[in-house]
Amino acid sequence: MADTLSALRSLMASHSPPLDALVVPSEDYHQSEYVSARDKRREFVSGFTGSAGLALVTMKEALLWTDGRYFLQATQELSDQWKLMRIGEDPAVDIWMADNLPNDASIGVDPWCISIDTAQRWERAFAIKQQKLVQTTKNLVDEVWINRPPAETNAVIVHALEFAGRSVADKLRFLREKLVQEKARGIIFTALDEVAWLYNIRGSDVAYCPVVHAFAIVTSNSAFFYVDKRKVSVEVKTHLEENGIEVREYMAVSSDVVLLASNELDAESTVRGTRTKVTEEVKTKENSNDLIWADPGSCCYALYSKLNPDKVHLQQSPLALAKALKNPVELEGLRKAHVRDGAAVVQYLVWLDKKLQDNYGASGYFLEGDAVNKEKHLKSLKLTEVTASDKLEGFRASKESFRGLSFPTISSVGPNAAIIHYSPQAETCAELDPDKIYLFDSGAQYLDGTTDITRTVHFGKPSAHEKACYTAVLKGHIALGNARFPNGTNGHALDILARVPLWKDGLDYRHGTGHGIGSYLNVHEGPHLISFRPQARNVPLQASMTVTDEPGYYEDGNFGIRLENVLIVKEADTKFNFGDKGYLSFEHITWAPYQKKLIDLSLLMPDEIDWLNSYHSKCKDILAPYLDEVEKEWLKKATEPISV
Amino acid sequence: MADTLSALRSLMASHSPPLDALVVPSEDYHQSEYVSARDKRREFVSGFTGSAGLALVTMKEALLWTDGRYFLQATQELSDQWKLMRIGEDPAVDIWMADNLPNDASIGVDPWCISIDTAQRWERAFAIKQQKLVQTTKNLVDEVWINRPPAETNAVIVHALEFAGRSVADKLRFLREKLVQEKARGIIFTALDEVAWLYNIRGSDVAYCPVVHAFAIVTSNSAFFYVDKRKVSVEVKTHLEENGIEVREYMAVSSDVVLLASNELDAESTVRGTRTKVTEEVKTKENSNDLIWADPGSCCYALYSKLNPDKVHLQQSPLALAKALKNPVELEGLRKAHVRDGAAVVQYLVWLDKKLQDNYGASGYFLEGDAVNKEKHLKSLKLTEVTASDKLEGFRASKESFRGLSFPTISSVGPNAAIIHYSPQAETCAELDPDKIYLFDSGAQYLDGTTDITRTVHFGKPSAHEKACYTAVLKGHIALGNARFPNGTNGHALDILARVPLWKDGLDYRHGTGHGIGSYLNVHEGPHLISFRPQARNVPLQASMTVTDEPGYYEDGNFGIRLENVLIVKEADTKFNFGDKGYLSFEHITWAPYQKKLIDLSLLMPDEIDWLNSYHSKCKDILAPYLDEVEKEWLKKATEPISV
Repeated sequence: MADTLSALRSLMASHSPPLDALVVPSEDYHQSEYVSARDKRREFVSGFTGSAGLALVTMKEALLWTDGRYFLQATQELSDQWKLMRIGEDPAVDIWMADNLPNDASIGVDPWCISIDTAQRWERAFAIKQQKLVQTTKNLVDEVWINRPPAETNAVIVHALEFAGRSVADKLRFLREKLVQEKARGIIFTALDEVAWLYNIRGSDVAYCPVVHAFAIVTSNSAFFYVDKRKVSVEVKTHLEENGIEVREYMAVSSDVVLLASNELDAESTVRGTRTKVTEEVKTKENSNDLIWADPGSCCYALYSKLNPDKVHLQQSPLALAKALKNPVELEGLRKAHVRDGAAVVQYLVWLDKKLQDNYGASGYFLEGDAVNKEKHLKSLKLTEVTASDKLEGFRASKESFRGLSFPTISSVGPNAAIIHYSPQAETCAELDPDKIYLFDSGAQYLDGTTDITRTVHFGKPSAHEKACYTAVLKGHIALGNARFPNGTNGHALDILARVPLWKDGLDYRHGTGHGIGSYLNVHEGPHLISFRPQARNVPLQASMTVTDEPGYYEDGNFGIRLENVLIVKEADTKFNFGDKGYLSFEHITWAPYQKKLIDLSLLMPDEIDWLNSYHSKCKDILAPYLDEVEKEWLKKATEPISV
Repeated sequence: MADTLSALRSLMASHSPPLDALVVPSEDYHQSEYVSARDKRREFVSGFTGSAGLALVTMKEALLWTDGRYFLQATQELSDQWKLMRIGEDPAVDIWMADNLPNDASIGVDPWCISIDTAQRWERAFAIKQQKLVQTTKNLVDEVWINRPPAETNAVIVHALEFAGRSVADKLRFLREKLVQEKARGIIFTALDEVAWLYNIRGSDVAYCPVVHAFAIVTSNSAFFYVDKRKVSVEVKTHLEENGIEVREYMAVSSDVVLLASNELDAESTVRGTRTKVTEEVKTKENSNDLIWADPGSCCYALYSKLNPDKVHLQQSPLALAKALKNPVELEGLRKAHVRDGAAVVQYLVWLDKKLQDNYGASGYFLEGDAVNKEKHLKSLKLTEVTASDKLEGFRASKESFRGLSFPTISSVGPNAAIIHYSPQAETCAELDPDKIYLFDSGAQYLDGTTDITRTVHFGKPSAHEKACYTAVLKGHIALGNARFPNGTNGHALDILARVPLWKDGLDYRHGTGHGIGSYLNVHEGPHLISFRPQARNVPLQASMTVTDEPGYYEDGNFGIRLENVLIVKEADTKFNFGDKGYLSFEHITWAPYQKKLIDLSLLMPDEIDWLNSYHSKCKDILAPYLDEVEKEWLKKATEPISV
């Protein structure tokens, strides 16, 4: 790492102009949440492996900004050369640069790795001291990264209509209507899930996300797919060309954006596929449109810089909401995928229950008792956070249409469960323990849907305090999941419902309560969310959106609790409809039991118990076809009604 | 009214410059919610008597804007010459003017009657078409108002320290520290309750609000009270001068603001009272401060226009929050006032119960049955919304330290209860009816506090639907009142808690859920509120604030339900304190029973029943000392525990 910093500083000094600082963000050219191995530049430079963070290298210092989820991990992973900057406690990176770098400083960044929004915010902060944001022509980290993994050449696949539910032609028609409405000549897509959704294609370039490294440009007359052509089979090329989409090399997007701006791109198109039929009115209008639409949150600054800023329409991509509103085929696929996924989770619980009893003398999932044989297990039978979660992956992999995990499994014992984004490593992770809480947050990609579920369990004797906390989390989880609310309500307003039962005891959690989830696409998906953060106000929840319901409670050094189901927003069947607004409610599509042993029944209200019994009863019936007799028997016991 | 419009148009035509339109707002020179008779200019011009609205007179048209609470009433009261503009449905007044008045139009307004915020918003809207906001030198309505009521000459009284709880000297010290912090030379107060609070004085110039028509200016060295000097007794003058406050004529504020701007005002001060002691640091700093602080929401545009805009510090008045955070004496006073007030409400309920049974053959407060003698009551015994509420006022007036009502009593039978701000008139109001819901929302001014309570009752046989709705409102009322939440939570986040039980059935209400309440001051007080409106985000709830908890449900043409208690925000005694933020909860200080007959017990959860029983039990004990034997017996029955 020392060599890396020296090498970088040497490149910074010889850069034209010489750079006083170099920013190394976590993101790839597509502002992705998860990036491929060769795009982990920030990790390579700093040694910090967390998913979120930003490195800054000056001629004298090296600093890494990350958020509260990663303070502990960053402290462990960063060398002495690096200083940890805590988001929320230390100054933000743009403020720090403006304050600590000299007047007229040149601050370098690869403009492909930052969004328009970020670049513009930094430029405003820098302006005060006449500092400049310098776009490096090459990525300086790539220059010094000797063993950088090679580019992926994984094949692009067509996402069949039986799963996608909506044809490319229909999506392009919708999009082109939006272009006319906004007086845009064309639109640039850089977000990988938007490109995949629009063209009904999937890939495997990035772990956990079935996407392809690609860009797209769409105008009223043409559509382009920028990708390493080695990934495109004849079948895929045909699928694309039939929809009027031309395949071009990945980096050709750079020059094509210039042609788009000068209105020469359409003439360049060689594909004469099915042009979207538009009305006469649309045809008349589209000729005079000269704006280029780019999403300021996802489009990279490099492409924006090639456009006349007066002619850029900076607005959220129309695909963000369109993708979030799942069509009936996607909804049915999500429901089915979640049933198979729930069966895998139950199989895992049955297996864990037996292992904990056999190997550790635990009293098990159903009984409360001290472990009798805890220290006597054989080395060979040792069960760790990683070996356990490998087993979970195995159960999922045995299910139809399984395509991999949807994010790194959080498999965490006791105090590790209090680390919200804990990622166990095979060499260092903890062993399972019948005396401690075990939290697992995991999900998978299936051809028909993406899943995400969290359960928290105890195979021994939970303390009264652990039960009280579990029950408070469960009450919040139920209150949100059972809510009904008028159209127009956003996730900022709903967030409090999951917290109020915790707040009663002075408990809380430092993360949002829910995120959208893709249809065989990214596990975290906007534009809506359920959170105390202001952006949760931007988009109201709407029928056919997906959203998670995942409150938690984390006690540093002791334990963590989280319960998570995926919900579908649906029209509510309310008795009345005051204000003619229409009311919404949620449909739970995640199926796995809550551990009754961890519930303090005296804290539950009758309506909560009714809901729990009804959910458990459905759980048992829905999952039965996927379970063997032993598993069915176990689930029957786990879902037996609670009576009070 | 026809004459008025003609006379106004003639003045508009002869104005220099001639006016294309004249705006007549509802507000007085102090942006008050309630104004005195002589300040009801908008009512005089338009004939519309509602509390909120804005009139616009052009050479050809006359338009009145008001909100949803008043659509029905405005339709009834406006003559053919007037057009009703519905806020939320029709264009806003500034947009309408910009769109409908000619380019270069001159739009007149008395600049004393609009706030800085409003004037600036209008000027931005007008700029597009080079329209001008013209400040009339005289109020044109006053010119044509022949029988305008004379100016009030009610005496100013000193609000004793035993009720105010904080000395004027201490308040001025706090204020002067704020001036230094904000680098302000002086501050202008136009809001009547802020002047009254700061100087510990009260008056009776405006119905329902114990305030004096006055302005104040405070600098580091001096303080001024602008008021009709006829209202100021020797005693009051002494109180003021002892605190270094000089009394000047009401309209002298106009020229004094100019002196303040040129830093000549201090030299003018003839009062040499107790100057606030400030630290050396403060003294050094204050000389260089040249900003004049004005609250853009309450300060009139007339005074702002006399200042150099570059030297105005536009920010919410520091007294808004200071006044909202009640001191221990005020809190104790509020608690005591609410006990006496609750006793008056119970006495009223007992009296009503008897009258409804005696006169109308009602089954009464406790029994569910059809009225047996409904039509046979004598004319002389007729009970109307007004005669009933007069009786309620009588019970209040018999209580210690009573000083009048705090707002016009809403006393409403059946469909009238669905009109949220219904104000019954003696000649036209409805008669009480044992077959209909009766809602009363009322409050009083006492020397030790201001009250505001709503109860909804039925003296016959409520329908199952009415009970279900009452129960949903009650559940929301309890959920909000019982909430615990971390410091930093605002009333925008909490609002949903009162709605969720209603939303479950597709019910809702179109008003906010809570407002602050004064200490022998205005019944509606900011800066915080509990509401879905964005301004509810501006100020988090803080310990020692007061706030109402008043969800409702209104079914047009049928009935209305609202339940309202006043709460004090207090530190919560939570088991834990996650995040070291400190948690808050509410203390109910309103005491009057909820009608058990209107509750559908099958819809209540055990914790709700527990709360209700506990509240009722306290109610019985707390109010007993103020009730006679019959009333005590009635209350005992009304508060008997519910068992399930």
